[in-house]
Amino acid sequence: MKTIDLNCDLGESFGAYKIGNDEQVLPHISSANIACGFHAGDPHVMNQTVLLAKKYGVAIGAHPGFQDLVGFGRRAMAVSASDVYDLVLYQIGALSAFCQPHDVKLTHVKPHGALYNMAAVDTSLAEAIARAIANFDPELALYGLAGSKLIAAGAAQGLKTVSEVFADRTYQPDGTLTPRTQPNAVIHDSNAAIKQVLQMVKEQTVQTITGEVIPIKADSICVHGDNIHALEFVKDLRHALTKEGITIKAIR
Amino acid sequence: MKTIDLNCDLGESFGAYKIGNDEQVLPHISSANIACGFHAGDPHVMNQTVLLAKKYGVAIGAHPGFQDLVGFGRRAMAVSASDVYDLVLYQIGALSAFCQPHDVKLTHVKPHGALYNMAAVDTSLAEAIARAIANFDPELALYGLAGSKLIAAGAAQGLKTVSEVFADRTYQPDGTLTPRTQPNAVIHDSNAAIKQVLQMVKEQTVQTITGEVIPIKADSICVHGDNIHALEFVKDLRHALTKEGITIKAIR
Amino acid sequence: MKTIDLNCDLGESFGAYKIGNDEQVLPHISSANIACGFHAGDPHVMNQTVLLAKKYGVAIGAHPGFQDLVGFGRRAMAVSASDVYDLVLYQIGALSAFCQPHDVKLTHVKPHGALYNMAAVDTSLAEAIARAIANFDPELALYGLAGSKLIAAGAAQGLKTVSEVFADRTYQPDGTLTPRTQPNAVIHDSNAAIKQVLQMVKEQTVQTITGEVIPIKADSICVHGDNIHALEFVKDLRHALTKEGITIKAIR
Amino acid sequence: MKTIDLNCDLGESFGAYKIGNDEQVLPHISSANIACGFHAGDPHVMNQTVLLAKKYGVAIGAHPGFQDLVGFGRRAMAVSASDVYDLVLYQIGALSAFCQPHDVKLTHVKPHGALYNMAAVDTSLAEAIARAIANFDPELALYGLAGSKLIAAGAAQGLKTVSEVFADRTYQPDGTLTPRTQPNAVIHDSNAAIKQVLQMVKEQTVQTITGEVIPIKADSICVHGDNIHALEFVKDLRHALTKEGITIKAIR
Repeated sequence: MKTIDLNCDLGESFGAYKIGNDEQVLPHISSANIACGFHAGDPHVMNQTVLLAKKYGVAIGAHPGFQDLVGFGRRAMAVSASDVYDLVLYQIGALSAFCQPHDVKLTHVKPHGALYNMAAVDTSLAEAIARAIANFDPELALYGLAGSKLIAAGAAQGLKTVSEVFADRTYQPDGTLTPRTQPNAVIHDSNAAIKQVLQMVKEQTVQTITGEVIPIKADSICVHGDNIHALEFVKDLRHALTKEGITIKAIR
Repeated sequence: MKTIDLNCDLGESFGAYKIGNDEQVLPHISSANIACGFHAGDPHVMNQTVLLAKKYGVAIGAHPGFQDLVGFGRRAMAVSASDVYDLVLYQIGALSAFCQPHDVKLTHVKPHGALYNMAAVDTSLAEAIARAIANFDPELALYGLAGSKLIAAGAAQGLKTVSEVFADRTYQPDGTLTPRTQPNAVIHDSNAAIKQVLQMVKEQTVQTITGEVIPIKADSICVHGDNIHALEFVKDLRHALTKEGITIKAIR
Repeated sequence: MKTIDLNCDLGESFGAYKIGNDEQVLPHISSANIACGFHAGDPHVMNQTVLLAKKYGVAIGAHPGFQDLVGFGRRAMAVSASDVYDLVLYQIGALSAFCQPHDVKLTHVKPHGALYNMAAVDTSLAEAIARAIANFDPELALYGLAGSKLIAAGAAQGLKTVSEVFADRTYQPDGTLTPRTQPNAVIHDSNAAIKQVLQMVKEQTVQTITGEVIPIKADSICVHGDNIHALEFVKDLRHALTKEGITIKAIR
Repeated sequence: MKTIDLNCDLGESFGAYKIGNDEQVLPHISSANIACGFHAGDPHVMNQTVLLAKKYGVAIGAHPGFQDLVGFGRRAMAVSASDVYDLVLYQIGALSAFCQPHDVKLTHVKPHGALYNMAAVDTSLAEAIARAIANFDPELALYGLAGSKLIAAGAAQGLKTVSEVFADRTYQPDGTLTPRTQPNAVIHDSNAAIKQVLQMVKEQTVQTITGEVIPIKADSICVHGDNIHALEFVKDLRHALTKEGITIKAIR
């Protein structure tokens, strides 16, 4: 029986600032990546989000990012591998502290934003992240862009890796995402996006912007819950997957 | 054989900013309280300080404080017990993440600055701190001001508590520290300070500012390493204690 | 002809985090208090909010607060008068920099949250705020709680002061607000709130919770724009004031 | 009569963290670039540093940087021109607020660290900085690397520009600094550094690492005051310049 993981970034509120509809999206996903207080999230939000993920039986992951709250961790920064090792370890530790009291286990780590993108193409940053995770707990799974250096670094460290694919992004012939600077980077039609997901999950292939069909490893689909449209899409996607006999299920 | 713990706040540097002479003071103490990135410290400093404490065989504790870097965690803040629970848990988790990879154990927690002072007199904050520690790891010891609400809250949670006394502060007849706003709050003479410590350790009593001798629980002496004078005092104190047959030794 | 000022706190978004419906409330108010990047706001938001206030012809004020983003500046902190002087001056300067390029003038300063509340009752903090404003630009008006130490300190510095009253809060016989810890602190009925405002503006009196009618100086009404209900109330209040022949108008 | 400006970055302390020997270096320089609270400095430090610069008759400049305290503003960040415009304007405004009360004038702006380096080679960031300055006060001078895009952008905005050269850095045949990644990037011999400065000031030329003599615009020498060695060098440099009949003098 085919299974697929649906993961979503959660716990991104901060103090009086609210982002996302965490409780609305949780019933529809299998894995939550929870912000750890650097690019988003605060200790109170982290605690509440862990509790909420537990309530819906969703796997709990750390979602570490750059210490750039005003930029939401989306701005690339000239960091060293050592900087990255330390900031990932710090954030995993901080989030894991909220798992113990609620008697749940931290299952995975997915880097956020600019850190995710930089680690996808930079071997030394990818290796630093993988090493931080392996040193903290070698049972943790590492989420990364399918086909990226991050996935390779995780495998080299002996970690369980989770190749992430995107429903609404187009792919280049070399398997990378079409950069957002290009006009055809995003799939705006929901049905086309769902069709792309079904092909990725069932065939482990994707049709590139040039029309070729190439292999792609699809362990988890990244979905969003920060607006009504995104929530609707998650429900539709879940329905389409289920209809095809595919079970939504966390990696572990 | 009598033993006593000497503890010191370490790892207070931040980025390009250096505070303290951590490597100079480490050979003379038995327990280090390491800042966790809120009032002082950063992920890199935390990692390095854990490594340094390990090198000198010094017990490693988390030193959580308020998220007030510019005030160094010394300014009282109107926080709720829930705020305190979450920020203590977060910081303990963050520091503990650096212990695992260096194969050392986190042994204790000592709140910092305004958080320490507020928890000494406020039962609900003290209880929040004790609960955060017990929920994270009930084997951790809790440091607090001798005779304070924090020590009481730790005991109520079933934690090992460590009653802290001060070499250079005078005591009131009720066992509390003379407030710094009063002229006789600080003992400036090193010999008098050492004499006070010896009495506290050997007799478990202290002479108050009114001349009375009262009982005091002295499990650990708080020392400083942030200037030459402080370093000299630690060496002198260590020498005086050893001469009296008292062993400097961490709680566990 | 009677006039009254309606003021609202704006520019409270931060990076990816949005708070408030600034453009919806601006057509209905006469003065905007713009957050300055410490408790809320960031340089981009400040620039945009100044531009928006200009578009609607609304008077622009600085809204300095404590450097406590996660607490939204609402938590009292043990600050010195010197701390307050420096942080108010810094924030006024920062906001004023965005006025020059848009060819608008900074007209007033209203402290935020815990700083506002502490300065209402603490003469030395009130004096520090008034002195910072007077040193920056003695033409700036100072907003404070009607009857507070802050208003007194502003007057003592020779500043134009603006006594602020609240539509939906009840008053004690001594003219102070009923603390929010008490059950009758807030007026939940819109009509009763509007009635209270009309009496304050027309008679410069207010009926206290014990039924007495006492004098109150009402130069400006504080309104909110952060939810639909608040927006509706501002429109209703504006309509009621206009119907009574009272003009909504900034202080200068 | 020949004159030259000696500028130094000051006011880099933060809360309990001290960096630099501001009062020791001030008697020897003509211009101070004061940190504005983003990469270093805080409102109290800014106020004190302005006062100190006034005491020694040193010209006061704003030294804006990235909001990256832990990285001391030295890490390149993927910022937009609009981000840079807003953060420069904010920081100039904040510093200028401390000039007014001490009755001194802000005379110049010098971007810090990664912002300085990025603006040296990126026209759109350089233009954003120049425009922020011109919009705030067109009388302010703009400091930049001699021959850089930042100097060109300042000139295009009609600003007075100040071309900065370095005593202890070597130059490439195209007039750029030898990157620090290369072994011969830094001149370690004090006499050689002083000789280079004298040539730059007197001849407006510099000998490159390949032995050629090329023209260079030298309006100001960047010096440091953060350690004993640097302080000694400033004194020696000042002495050598004075001996050659060159007057140390701010730009205005």
